Amino acid sequence: MVAKIAVVAGDGIGTEVVAQALKVLRVVLPGVETNDYDLGAARYNRTGEVLPDSVRDELRGHDAILLGAVGDPSVPPGVLERGLLLKLRFDFDQYVNLRPSRLWPGTTSPLAGLKPGEIDLVVVREGTEGLYVGAGGNLHPGTAAEVATEESLNTRHGVERVIRDAFARAQKRERRKVTLVHKTNVLTHAGGLWARTFNAVKAEFPDIETEYQHVDAAAMFLVTNPQRYDVVVTDNLFGDILTDIAAAVTGGIGLAASGSINPERAFPSMFEPVHGSAPDIAGKGVADPAAAVLSTALLLDHLGHPEAAARVSEAVGAEVAARTPGSALSTDAVGDRLAAAVA
Amino acid sequence: MVAKIAVVAGDGIGTEVVAQALKVLRVVLPGVETNDYDLGAARYNRTGEVLPDSVRDELRGHDAILLGAVGDPSVPPGVLERGLLLKLRFDFDQYVNLRPSRLWPGTTSPLAGLKPGEIDLVVVREGTEGLYVGAGGNLHPGTAAEVATEESLNTRHGVERVIRDAFARAQKRERRKVTLVHKTNVLTHAGGLWARTFNAVKAEFPDIETEYQHVDAAAMFLVTNPQRYDVVVTDNLFGDILTDIAAAVTGGIGLAASGSINPERAFPSMFEPVHGSAPDIAGKGVADPAAAVLSTALLLDHLGHPEAAARVSEAVGAEVAARTPGSALSTDAVGDRLAAAVA
Ligand SMILES: CC(C)[C@H](C(=O)O)[C@@H](O)C(=O)O
Ligand SMILES: CC(C)[C@H](C(=O)O)[C@@H](O)C(=O)O
Repeated sequence: MVAKIAVVAGDGIGTEVVAQALKVLRVVLPGVETNDYDLGAARYNRTGEVLPDSVRDELRGHDAILLGAVGDPSVPPGVLERGLLLKLRFDFDQYVNLRPSRLWPGTTSPLAGLKPGEIDLVVVREGTEGLYVGAGGNLHPGTAAEVATEESLNTRHGVERVIRDAFARAQKRERRKVTLVHKTNVLTHAGGLWARTFNAVKAEFPDIETEYQHVDAAAMFLVTNPQRYDVVVTDNLFGDILTDIAAAVTGGIGLAASGSINPERAFPSMFEPVHGSAPDIAGKGVADPAAAVLSTALLLDHLGHPEAAARVSEAVGAEVAARTPGSALSTDAVGDRLAAAVA
Repeated sequence: MVAKIAVVAGDGIGTEVVAQALKVLRVVLPGVETNDYDLGAARYNRTGEVLPDSVRDELRGHDAILLGAVGDPSVPPGVLERGLLLKLRFDFDQYVNLRPSRLWPGTTSPLAGLKPGEIDLVVVREGTEGLYVGAGGNLHPGTAAEVATEESLNTRHGVERVIRDAFARAQKRERRKVTLVHKTNVLTHAGGLWARTFNAVKAEFPDIETEYQHVDAAAMFLVTNPQRYDVVVTDNLFGDILTDIAAAVTGGIGLAASGSINPERAFPSMFEPVHGSAPDIAGKGVADPAAAVLSTALLLDHLGHPEAAARVSEAVGAEVAARTPGSALSTDAVGDRLAAAVA
């Protein structure tokens, strides 16, 4: 068997864009086995279930998970995020949350004067620690005396492995530069651990250029000078924010792909577009499948098919570059084009 | 006595820009009493002192503090931030960290197609809680078993008063809109407190339009659609990041002013430009004093001189609009112009 992929199409446009990603995947990876899992807002509303343990265990038997998007305004905030997306990231030890951002030919940055190709960065966001662990609570809830806490938990183990991953990725890139982003001047405890670990790992990679930036400065520079970044490594929450800025300056989340990766492949990694289920445009056939297809390229790369991955990304790049403003193709038509292009 | 202002010129360009702010202040508030305090990197390097209790107590006897900038690469990260800036914010209960962002005539946004006047927002950032309280620690530091924690502490008391302040400010503005930014889908404990408190306060302000956004979405919208914001209220760390994005899209931190405010005036509030001490350009007379002068306008407004405040902001606006690209005036000359303009 070539590979066994669990498909969580999810809600809204999730199902539409995943269908296109699968068209492409089947062409570049003939014989791929896919199994559909019904998870997300629709299932939750129907059954009250978010991720039964039995389903989690079935997912575990796959090489990777391809996810469209989950969510609907009818579901209270946190239910699917904590119960499904974050649960999978944590249970499957997906500690590298990988988010590349490129200004593709044919796209326009909201930043004046930027030319395609000028932004090409990847954020390596920690995926299993920090403020995302859910530690905290509410004392005297609903009263004037209420106290709410959130605790950021960071381990040398967790910080070192993701920093090491960032350096290894930088070694395979042209510019070979890693920027650590944190807030060491205020978050001195966690920041100290990150900074010390970064310095220890960087000593092993003398060929990699390094720099450190506070998160507020990095947020600013992503707007004023995104060209300066190559690989950015940062914690879970900072990575969440910075990758949305990076997506914004490269033309929005329409092209933003992501992977929640366990590099050792001890568990399945999960690949998904950064965009949500977009209930407002669902069912109209107008969703752009580019981000889902680019996420499939990340999946292919992770499973050891870098050539197929490159073919898929290049096809997306060419398709986007060939778009005529004002005459958008349907979701389905874009998928067909991409599948033909990679054939 | 008109007002008693403590002046902390600080390091680098801090001294240069504060000198201009004082020129302007003396014109619009004749008879103002100012007392200089030598604090910052220079004093720390000379004496090892950051903020002696006796100095803090003297500062307390003032109506407000005008600060230039503190910091130098020679001082380890955290020393002046925690020991001076954050200490004053916390000791003087400066719970409203106020950061207006406007795209002024004569300035250019890095965002394509934005016209002056199209961005006019103010971030009301909580200043005394959250991850900034310094709670946390390091277990087994320096070993492979190290664990580092940071705890975000949030109280109903602290959250309610800053949200209330944001609504009160929105009532005095034209668009009358408040956006709450948090990350309720992940930080469910603190996010729950913020969301519930926001909903309770908003019921008292039926004339104010409201919306909620996750911090990652807000970071993106500040780039793709900053026009949508009027008053943004958010926690300490999110506010730190969002205000730098807001500064970036309005042309950089050259014009970004801030106030760390205790609205009840039980303690002195502190006003400072968002930019740092910029050691690289210090002593050359090229620093732009606009942000320091705009911070003085916030100071005037806080002390009950809204007319003088408006005069000062308008003078800065006019001066910036009259600038000829490529022929920058000296710091001193800009200060003279502004002082003349408000006379
Ligand atoms: C949906 C949410 C839990 C998630 C996150 O915060 O990580 C999303 O914003 C993302 O970036 O993947
Ligand atoms: C210097 C630092 C402590 C400070 C902060 O994080 O609040 C600064 O970035 C700011 O925004 O005023």
